[in-house]
Amino acid sequence: MSWSHERRGYHHGNLREALVAAALALIAEKGPAGFTIAEAARLAGVSPGAPYRHFRDAEALLAEVALRGFEHFAEVLTAAWNDGRPDPQRALEALGRAYLAFARQEPAYYAAMFETHMPLGAHPGLLSASDRAFGILRQAAERLTATLPRETRPPSLMMALHIWALAHGIASLFVRADPSRRKLPMSPEDLLEAGVLIYLQSLGLAGGRS
Amino acid sequence: MSWSHERRGYHHGNLREALVAAALALIAEKGPAGFTIAEAARLAGVSPGAPYRHFRDAEALLAEVALRGFEHFAEVLTAAWNDGRPDPQRALEALGRAYLAFARQEPAYYAAMFETHMPLGAHPGLLSASDRAFGILRQAAERLTATLPRETRPPSLMMALHIWALAHGIASLFVRADPSRRKLPMSPEDLLEAGVLIYLQSLGLAGGRS
Repeated sequence: MSWSHERRGYHHGNLREALVAAALALIAEKGPAGFTIAEAARLAGVSPGAPYRHFRDAEALLAEVALRGFEHFAEVLTAAWNDGRPDPQRALEALGRAYLAFARQEPAYYAAMFETHMPLGAHPGLLSASDRAFGILRQAAERLTATLPRETRPPSLMMALHIWALAHGIASLFVRADPSRRKLPMSPEDLLEAGVLIYLQSLGLAGGRS
Repeated sequence: MSWSHERRGYHHGNLREALVAAALALIAEKGPAGFTIAEAARLAGVSPGAPYRHFRDAEALLAEVALRGFEHFAEVLTAAWNDGRPDPQRALEALGRAYLAFARQEPAYYAAMFETHMPLGAHPGLLSASDRAFGILRQAAERLTATLPRETRPPSLMMALHIWALAHGIASLFVRADPSRRKLPMSPEDLLEAGVLIYLQSLGLAGGRS
């Protein structure tokens, strides 16, 4: 029966993609905790049992969306980094802007990646996909600290964590949240750039601008 | 009938409190998007229709939880600020620690306050409760910048927003998230303190320590 079902409609690859697309649409509508496997099946136009060939429950489907989100995020961050690469400070600022742009343009991916309390370690590949995205920021921080004499270099891991947290905090509070939430004296992008600049200046890493 | 119902069991005040308590328990279990008014009524031991005397839908109940969360948060921040008050830099660091402690100790309030995309302006009192909590951080930033000569003072609103975002980012990524998510080289508290110190040093606001 499963074989004839496949012959009539989806083969494995198609079904998987259709379910991921349905989950993204449901997350955009109701948030990452708001959908069931049955709803995803309905939206994908397959029988309620069909998803279980690929995903054992809604969390497994959500984890697949988050995994793809981190992969997409890593691509976006890599592109931003490459754009600014000749100047390591500008490269880091470009990563910050790319972070906020991703939160703005990919709300469903962003929600699946960052707004659930899903145990990342429980889903194959998810933790390492998340680590790969963070790794780009880490590399950019290393590149920048390498411009200082070895004995005055700040720990690049700590620096990357601070910039990630600042970008994430601004994205959560001022990009993802309801815009009526707080009146900002500047755009989230300018707020982040100013914060990164003040931080880097303290470490002797912001050359020439103020 | 409403009158006799009140005589038999809950009067208005009790019912309201019982529903808020039920919502907090449901948020802790399932996240802020995961409960219905009917479930809250069941957990509070009242009829499915009873909550509608106080809350028109689950979002209105969630908004009440968020409002109380911001009020509680403002109390916690005020206490932290008063503890550190004689030294404005220590007071600001105490606020940072209180922020992370609240995220750790009050996950249901924190989720209702920060992990929904509820329009704050749509619920009476919610935006101003949120503003009151942020106002404490703002005052602490003002107090600290006032130690500098007027012509070299950084804008205290921007400073408060940067510290709020850094604290919020660290709370979201490293306190609220699954601990397996990322191995930190230090505790979230130490990471925040180091970040605030680097930031304040840049502005000439971190006296004597490094």
